[in-house]
Amino acid sequence: MHFELLHQDKDTKARVGKLHTDHGEIETPIFMPVGTAGTVKGIHQYEIENEIQAQIILGNTYHLFLRPGTEVIEAAGGLHKFINYNRPILTDSGGYQVYSLSGSRKITEEGVKFQSHIDGTYHFFTPERAIDIQKSIGADIIMAFDECTPYPCDYQYAKNSMKMTHRWLDRCFAQFNKTPGKYGYEQALFPIVQGSVYKDLRQESAKYIADTDSLGNAIGGLSVGEPAEELYEMTEVVTDILPSEKPRYLMGVGTPINLLECIALGIDMFDCVMPTRNARHGLLFTSEGTINIKNKKWEKDFSPIDPNGTSSVDSFYTKAYLRHLIKTKEYLGVQIASIHNLAFYLALIKEARVKIMEGTFLEWKDEMVKKLGQRL
Amino acid sequence: MHFELLHQDKDTKARVGKLHTDHGEIETPIFMPVGTAGTVKGIHQYEIENEIQAQIILGNTYHLFLRPGTEVIEAAGGLHKFINYNRPILTDSGGYQVYSLSGSRKITEEGVKFQSHIDGTYHFFTPERAIDIQKSIGADIIMAFDECTPYPCDYQYAKNSMKMTHRWLDRCFAQFNKTPGKYGYEQALFPIVQGSVYKDLRQESAKYIADTDSLGNAIGGLSVGEPAEELYEMTEVVTDILPSEKPRYLMGVGTPINLLECIALGIDMFDCVMPTRNARHGLLFTSEGTINIKNKKWEKDFSPIDPNGTSSVDSFYTKAYLRHLIKTKEYLGVQIASIHNLAFYLALIKEARVKIMEGTFLEWKDEMVKKLGQRL
Ligand SMILES: [Zn+2]
Ligand SMILES: [Zn+2]
Repeated sequence: MHFELLHQDKDTKARVGKLHTDHGEIETPIFMPVGTAGTVKGIHQYEIENEIQAQIILGNTYHLFLRPGTEVIEAAGGLHKFINYNRPILTDSGGYQVYSLSGSRKITEEGVKFQSHIDGTYHFFTPERAIDIQKSIGADIIMAFDECTPYPCDYQYAKNSMKMTHRWLDRCFAQFNKTPGKYGYEQALFPIVQGSVYKDLRQESAKYIADTDSLGNAIGGLSVGEPAEELYEMTEVVTDILPSEKPRYLMGVGTPINLLECIALGIDMFDCVMPTRNARHGLLFTSEGTINIKNKKWEKDFSPIDPNGTSSVDSFYTKAYLRHLIKTKEYLGVQIASIHNLAFYLALIKEARVKIMEGTFLEWKDEMVKKLGQRL
Repeated sequence: MHFELLHQDKDTKARVGKLHTDHGEIETPIFMPVGTAGTVKGIHQYEIENEIQAQIILGNTYHLFLRPGTEVIEAAGGLHKFINYNRPILTDSGGYQVYSLSGSRKITEEGVKFQSHIDGTYHFFTPERAIDIQKSIGADIIMAFDECTPYPCDYQYAKNSMKMTHRWLDRCFAQFNKTPGKYGYEQALFPIVQGSVYKDLRQESAKYIADTDSLGNAIGGLSVGEPAEELYEMTEVVTDILPSEKPRYLMGVGTPINLLECIALGIDMFDCVMPTRNARHGLLFTSEGTINIKNKKWEKDFSPIDPNGTSSVDSFYTKAYLRHLIKTKEYLGVQIASIHNLAFYLALIKEARVKIMEGTFLEWKDEMVKKLGQRL
């Protein structure tokens, strides 16, 4: 795996690059649809490629570990084969879901004991275990096992937690380097910067992570409820330190506006459940602003879902029909809205890439941010 | 609308025909996927045509009346335009759902007062109203408003109900003939034979319905819990009387075996929620028998869902993956299983048509019935 930095914007810290993996190339900046349990909810594999035009998807280690379990995934020859998706896959470490979903969890220096949200069974994740599981899953990009601090988080907790995350990182690398990739293709480990919303902690963590000289670096613990200004401030503090010749992944971010602002701060990779989760509630992102398709105003609007949309559902189905489907809780409503939102995210980030290359990114971004903030 | 009877099987009462409508031709025998509220659950419109290869779908008047309502459908220019499906659509009269779904209902000579299962509001369907609503929906084929008797049903109730259904039928035709089709294309009204499981009532009803000289005729009140023998017996009693030069539609039937047996008895059209409802529970129909994909035996079976399947999902996805998706209640599991089951139904009925044309239907049917009854 290697990263080519192709272009650096003159006005901002935005960059254009290309990440080469054994499952194909990823043009950055990129957004990664979340395929929680080995499926991007409501979307067929051929739609991921043809309608959404995703270049990489994300899988959740926590979910995949619980169901179907690593034994099944290994028997299939890895997640790519299990789900029949042959482009790159990134897995998170499971930590985030352990903290947010599991019935109860106890964090110690050794690792995290937690209770499955499905059947209440107890499990224990350690940095070593998180690496082993992700190797079994067969992700192209494996994430380090960290503690994602909540917001707000007091300084002392954030500092202690960051230090532990660094010690856990050393254990992750030790375990990672013990064995080769499980399926014949390269698997890379990305470390994660923590430090909550404290500038000095973020700087300290970013330096620690930069020193690992990894193939790519991630920023975690943001987009957990803090104001957008803190998200941007912390992102900038960290991207000032992380090496420019490596891809930078901002985890769990965010709205279309967040994406554009963080691209301007030097971020290359994003993931977020927002486009699919919001789709299930009938909230659509468009280049002219957001639409709550449940609103009465769309009841007899027989115009296309999004005349500027890039996916076939945007022109094939109408707003009134999608409203009906979402209000009656029909599967097809979720399917259409999810394709739309993800296709919009991918098209937006692709356009950002073009604008960076053309040298018009800053002006375009400021215009887009105004439009994206509107409610239609 | 007109029906061409193209071939009559020499060994059975099976027939091959073609029903011409203003939205295209339908090759019979045919199975009609149920598109309850203007969507075949979990399936995109392009998949209805390309994957399932359906030639006509069914809409439920009860559901469409409640949501989105005729005002919205009329504003769209009819259901075809509202859902962007340009092949023929048949609507039931709403009666069946009123009896089976609504919170409470009261049947009188005038019609049926019922309570919405969604919000508890009261509504009143009469034969006239059912025709008006279906004309507004814009179905190519409109069904008469009848009382679908339950099983078991005592003789006197069945007889009185049948008589009322006949009086309601006269009112349906009177209302139907008052106004032309609403959207410039032909809409046809099919009457429905009732009479529960009583041979003399079925014969009386079939004669009454035959005398209306309609463009097509339907058989209702079966597949409501009676043994298969009674289903077949009543079907045969009725098809002996209904004119052979008109299509015969057996409502709400059934399993793949039911379809083949009833084709042999002279039925041309079928609809049933079974392929989609069973799909949602992980029950798959295949040419070798049925599969409960939730069974442990499929956990590590990485073979295609159905090597003999006709849809792309059959070869693209594996049994183990589908099992995982159904067990984790992922949308994609429902989507895949629904496409599979409906594509199987349509392929089966298409093969039946070929066998009838070739003169090998009876032998093939008896072989298939054995295989279809197996559990894999
Ligand atoms: Zn390369
Ligand atoms: Zn013709």
